[in-house]
Amino acid sequence: MSSSTEIRSVPESYPMNTGDAAYINAKSSDFKKEAQKESMNVAKVMIDDAIAEKLDVKKFSFTSKSTFRIADLGCSAGPNTFHVMQNIIDAVQHKYQSQGLTSHTPEFQVFFNDIPSNNFNTLFTTLPPERPYFAAGVPGSFHGRLFPESSLHFVHSFYALQLLSEVPKELLNKNSPAWNKGRISYTCAQDEVAHAYAAQFAEDMATFFDARAKELAVDGIMVLIMPAIPNVGQSSAHGLMSDCLGSSLMDMAKEGLISEEQVDLFNLPFYITSPKEMKEIVERNGCFRIEKMKIQNPRSGIDAPISGQSCMMQRRAGLEGMISKHFGAEIVDDLFYRFSKKIDEVSDLLESQFQAGTQLSIVLKRI
Amino acid sequence: MSSSTEIRSVPESYPMNTGDAAYINAKSSDFKKEAQKESMNVAKVMIDDAIAEKLDVKKFSFTSKSTFRIADLGCSAGPNTFHVMQNIIDAVQHKYQSQGLTSHTPEFQVFFNDIPSNNFNTLFTTLPPERPYFAAGVPGSFHGRLFPESSLHFVHSFYALQLLSEVPKELLNKNSPAWNKGRISYTCAQDEVAHAYAAQFAEDMATFFDARAKELAVDGIMVLIMPAIPNVGQSSAHGLMSDCLGSSLMDMAKEGLISEEQVDLFNLPFYITSPKEMKEIVERNGCFRIEKMKIQNPRSGIDAPISGQSCMMQRRAGLEGMISKHFGAEIVDDLFYRFSKKIDEVSDLLESQFQAGTQLSIVLKRI
Repeated sequence: MSSSTEIRSVPESYPMNTGDAAYINAKSSDFKKEAQKESMNVAKVMIDDAIAEKLDVKKFSFTSKSTFRIADLGCSAGPNTFHVMQNIIDAVQHKYQSQGLTSHTPEFQVFFNDIPSNNFNTLFTTLPPERPYFAAGVPGSFHGRLFPESSLHFVHSFYALQLLSEVPKELLNKNSPAWNKGRISYTCAQDEVAHAYAAQFAEDMATFFDARAKELAVDGIMVLIMPAIPNVGQSSAHGLMSDCLGSSLMDMAKEGLISEEQVDLFNLPFYITSPKEMKEIVERNGCFRIEKMKIQNPRSGIDAPISGQSCMMQRRAGLEGMISKHFGAEIVDDLFYRFSKKIDEVSDLLESQFQAGTQLSIVLKRI
Repeated sequence: MSSSTEIRSVPESYPMNTGDAAYINAKSSDFKKEAQKESMNVAKVMIDDAIAEKLDVKKFSFTSKSTFRIADLGCSAGPNTFHVMQNIIDAVQHKYQSQGLTSHTPEFQVFFNDIPSNNFNTLFTTLPPERPYFAAGVPGSFHGRLFPESSLHFVHSFYALQLLSEVPKELLNKNSPAWNKGRISYTCAQDEVAHAYAAQFAEDMATFFDARAKELAVDGIMVLIMPAIPNVGQSSAHGLMSDCLGSSLMDMAKEGLISEEQVDLFNLPFYITSPKEMKEIVERNGCFRIEKMKIQNPRSGIDAPISGQSCMMQRRAGLEGMISKHFGAEIVDDLFYRFSKKIDEVSDLLESQFQAGTQLSIVLKRI
């Protein structure tokens, strides 16, 4: 940044549940906690291994007054982010010990990032009172610069990159071939819709990797955990769930409870990528080496079969705010009841799609 | 910090208006903005001069990837903190230019600090959209460590250091000689009360300077703006206002609107220092050189005489939350009406005490 350059904040198009009524927040938070526990366990192994095998602490050449800086991008209001940050610091400290560098262990500073409408007040008042790091909150979209050049040593992001900076504009244009009539996502839609989504994701990822390439110090590690499908275009658990939600909305439109036009104008601002697609995006950026990449079943530690009820709770936690804003809060209970019934009908298919993998973990090194 | 040391957060004893009802916040914010404008103008000249004359940017030996880090301690929820941070950065950038070092101008990162119950959500959603710095919020008490070692280059604090970490305990003990019966502060109280306040302030300042000595890089600058009295023990505008508030409370107690015991148990967690006392505290710490120290009249640019109404608005903005919590919200209107009448009666005396100086500015360099 030259001294005259302004750092522009990226507008936030999709405040999630964070800005909505307190009761939604409270519920979402519990639902999310439960739903994310298994996903986090699967990710923890990947992060521990990445630090043990790929983080070369000697490369940072810390002096006695240096700081190891960690950022969690899209951290939400906690408490999951606190567990993950603690795990990362434990693993880094262990690395210093195992290399006989205990006396060189730096101080840690953790930056909790999310969009400005995230509930930072809750995040800050629930910080663990005894923590081995200095805490800071960083408001802003990760589709742009958030930190000074080369100032970070470890970047983490958990289930945040699927969120697009905006719904592709052509989806809302009745005269466009990508006009997404009667659907809320790109699965089972015409090719133009899927292309518009993929293009938006590619553009968002380009700005994401450009920003991180500037912010992460050389040899720094970035671990991205995100929903994914095994292969581009393949039918997936994520797509199936979006289709169930979309078809529930269309059922309600046919019954006159909402208008069809409302459904036409509603599109989920999510894109679920594949390992191949992410590999291409990383290579296009050119500043990172892929150290590890793995697609897994985040439910692998769970014995119970998939239930409409549990899927409903997870989806509702993430989408209630957005749906209330577009369709009105009065339809939410009915909609998610219909959704859970549809999920129950396809639970076998959903189970097999989970088996194929829905969670992508990528370990990258800044080169 | 060794790798095994936990960073303990300091408990916050006195949430001010920040955690109270929204209407209080909204009002306080307007009152404060108005009241602080003149104080800030007086301080700005001091800060500009400090950067022009005392900040030696060559000493930091920044590389092209370095960051100039600024902290505002006790920033509140804005917008004053944004103006001050912008002014500091303008002055530092100008310094680089004036020394022919424009191409070496680093990136800026600003840390907005206040206690965790401060309204960081408001702070973050009202950040200037175009700003020449990366922003972060740091929740925690400045009576303890908040930042990694030697990580800051400029520290600023405006009207925050007068706030004690806690009311001296002996004031609340009926059997102590410092039992503060019928008063809410140490002015006009017995010596033991004043000593207890002074001792608490000295202890708080010791932890403050110890923490800042670790956090500020050598040759870094710290500018502290705080309320003050010209000499220790001298009668002052701040003391007179506290006495007017205390005597309004005692009038209400005599009329049976509140109990005398409630007044006995209420003590303002503020201590107003003097230049001499601050000089001794800085010298005791030993890590800072006083570059400039000045006591001024923050009302020097104001033509209008002091009015009970304007004093009332300023004090109410700062104290309403605390008073409501202790005495109940129903007494607040009556109390501040009485207070404003008393201020009108002593406005000539108050004016002369303002002339003697009530605002202390100190410029310190980390040595």
